[in-house]
Amino acid sequence: MTFHSMWAELVPIGRSSASGGYRRYAWTPADLDCRAWFKEQAESRGLAYEVDRNGNQWAWLGDPDAGDAVVTGSHLDSVPDGGAFDGPLGVVSSFAALDELRARGTDLAKPLAVVNFGDEEGARFGLACVGSRLTAGQLTREQAHRLTDGEGVTLARAMEAAGYDPDTVGPDPERLARIGAFVELHVEQGRALDLTGDRVGIASAIWPHGRWRFDFRGEANHAGTTRLTDRHDPMLSYAETVLAARREAELAGAVATFGKIAVEPNGVNAIPSLVRGWLDSRAEDQGRLDAVVAGIEKAAGEYAAAHGIALDVVRESFTPVVEFDHALRDELARILGKDTGITVPVLGTGAGHDAGILSGRIPTAMLFVRNPTGVSHSPAEFAAEDDCVAGVLALADVLEGLARR
Amino acid sequence: MTFHSMWAELVPIGRSSASGGYRRYAWTPADLDCRAWFKEQAESRGLAYEVDRNGNQWAWLGDPDAGDAVVTGSHLDSVPDGGAFDGPLGVVSSFAALDELRARGTDLAKPLAVVNFGDEEGARFGLACVGSRLTAGQLTREQAHRLTDGEGVTLARAMEAAGYDPDTVGPDPERLARIGAFVELHVEQGRALDLTGDRVGIASAIWPHGRWRFDFRGEANHAGTTRLTDRHDPMLSYAETVLAARREAELAGAVATFGKIAVEPNGVNAIPSLVRGWLDSRAEDQGRLDAVVAGIEKAAGEYAAAHGIALDVVRESFTPVVEFDHALRDELARILGKDTGITVPVLGTGAGHDAGILSGRIPTAMLFVRNPTGVSHSPAEFAAEDDCVAGVLALADVLEGLARR
Repeated sequence: MTFHSMWAELVPIGRSSASGGYRRYAWTPADLDCRAWFKEQAESRGLAYEVDRNGNQWAWLGDPDAGDAVVTGSHLDSVPDGGAFDGPLGVVSSFAALDELRARGTDLAKPLAVVNFGDEEGARFGLACVGSRLTAGQLTREQAHRLTDGEGVTLARAMEAAGYDPDTVGPDPERLARIGAFVELHVEQGRALDLTGDRVGIASAIWPHGRWRFDFRGEANHAGTTRLTDRHDPMLSYAETVLAARREAELAGAVATFGKIAVEPNGVNAIPSLVRGWLDSRAEDQGRLDAVVAGIEKAAGEYAAAHGIALDVVRESFTPVVEFDHALRDELARILGKDTGITVPVLGTGAGHDAGILSGRIPTAMLFVRNPTGVSHSPAEFAAEDDCVAGVLALADVLEGLARR
Repeated sequence: MTFHSMWAELVPIGRSSASGGYRRYAWTPADLDCRAWFKEQAESRGLAYEVDRNGNQWAWLGDPDAGDAVVTGSHLDSVPDGGAFDGPLGVVSSFAALDELRARGTDLAKPLAVVNFGDEEGARFGLACVGSRLTAGQLTREQAHRLTDGEGVTLARAMEAAGYDPDTVGPDPERLARIGAFVELHVEQGRALDLTGDRVGIASAIWPHGRWRFDFRGEANHAGTTRLTDRHDPMLSYAETVLAARREAELAGAVATFGKIAVEPNGVNAIPSLVRGWLDSRAEDQGRLDAVVAGIEKAAGEYAAAHGIALDVVRESFTPVVEFDHALRDELARILGKDTGITVPVLGTGAGHDAGILSGRIPTAMLFVRNPTGVSHSPAEFAAEDDCVAGVLALADVLEGLARR
């Protein structure tokens, strides 16, 4: 099955006809259809298929127990109205790269595997990389069981409804011990490769990043009858903070975004009692990120005080900088540069990935495929098929270089 | 049944234990409980109970067909997490005022009625004063049937589920022709009476007011990887517009509020594709209101253009200034001033009411009861029981003055 035909099979699954975007949330029917597709790809190639204790799917070429395995893969779930490439490009390219190695007749000394990590985006239960976090021991069974979606359904209940046993989830050191290297291919989520004119790049590091919840509490009141001077309107402090976040990020060369908001009571004729805004911020290094977030918090505090608004800021998640394994990164650069002498660009990225989670436990690397617009997490996300094919060949070269006899 | 005991019966109905606010939305179980309470009040007093073609409830003392009736009442539904007084104070005071007239043994020359207008707040179907608008011919059957709540349930279906026939709704000129005067008592939704130290006031006019929907459309993208200069983030234009609305309202001595927002995709790590904000604005006269809204639209357009954001502004509803009947207003002032020689304050208000809808068809007046904090549309809405009792006596005086032989 070619890259093109695998891609065509995935395209319709979980796509909203209204937005054109994907709604493949963990353990929903769309996600289960993607998982069925993965199983079929494994079985049609005669690969050994298994699901681990955390619901991640694996397809093995060679003996998993031989050790020092070379594993590649990504995820199949999506953000709300996400694009087709974020995740699936890595999984499809992995199967295509295996096909390429078989076509080349490469003599493999190590087992190879393709993996689909569950719930990478965290769109349903609010925490990203649940499958890899559980495996790496970054999330306990108790914490996972408490995760709840917007409808009040727990992760445990959702897994059960999908036919999986939530009581087995937890750290999986034996599985990690089998793996010698993990390489995740991913569509780039910025325009760095487009600006340098390269099809494929290697990740250097994932920027430190986090989420902060800003709760602005004022006083609900009638929008028609309350004099401006009597108001404690938290929407004003929120608006000022949104603009402050942009200014602080610009100053520091970082990014800061308020993309999610919840308002109470959210009525047209009611001054809100609560405006809750979530800040996502990322920077090249910890010092810059700290400075950006401190600047935003300070500004928000001043605005809130001026309007008689109570402000609470809670850090909901934080991931320190991830430096990918330098030896593996250099090995990838050597493999990819061998025929051409061209230096493959090495890029930092602001996005989190399963590879980032695993990098604390096993040697891990990432390949990026050019994204001509830089758009991601949107129906407009795009990569040219030529670039995708270049990505497959690069991944095949890397797997061959790492696993051959 | 005393004012106090009627009030105590209503207090628990539809109250959220989480917020302490009321969620009595039209045709929901909480609303139906309130309606059952109204029917019981009518029947326990031997008043003739009827429901009109639009689902409004009536309780008659005397012969409805005699004509020139004096009608009082308000509504029992609430905004999301509203207070206990907005609406119910008028209905409870109406029954208590009838009790007071009976206790006085007043010889009535005209029929009296208490009314509960359905769906005044518009919390569920998005349009305020549905019951009185239908009756006054300001809303057609076709328009009413198209109204839909947030779950996709139409008003017609909701009425049916509650046991009412949606096919009978429509203008009711015969019913209006029976009425000589309508007086609505309401908790004040500002602090004017508190500032003058009066318990009760008379309405002069309702400010012109309207709702405008601002749709800021940008480009969804990854919050971690999209450079600031590559973004088209509609949240920034929204934030700037929120602040512009406050400035414009301050300049004009008007009010302007962004209290409701909807964001797509509303994900923490996604730059929004759409931020939809609703503006509520009101001013003493049409010229000022036009100037405020034009100023906000102009500012929003400039901000949107600067960020590459598409802006659409839609006026969703508009109510011109309502001047209450001058003769009836002066009559109320004469009645209430008769014993004391005190001039009862006459107030404008920024809030819409069923009385405002009916004022175009029949002589209509309003009484306001002091609100010591001015807070309304909030669980903290409050009026002192002494002031409520003063309101009942003032309403009894007014009904007596208008209806006695």
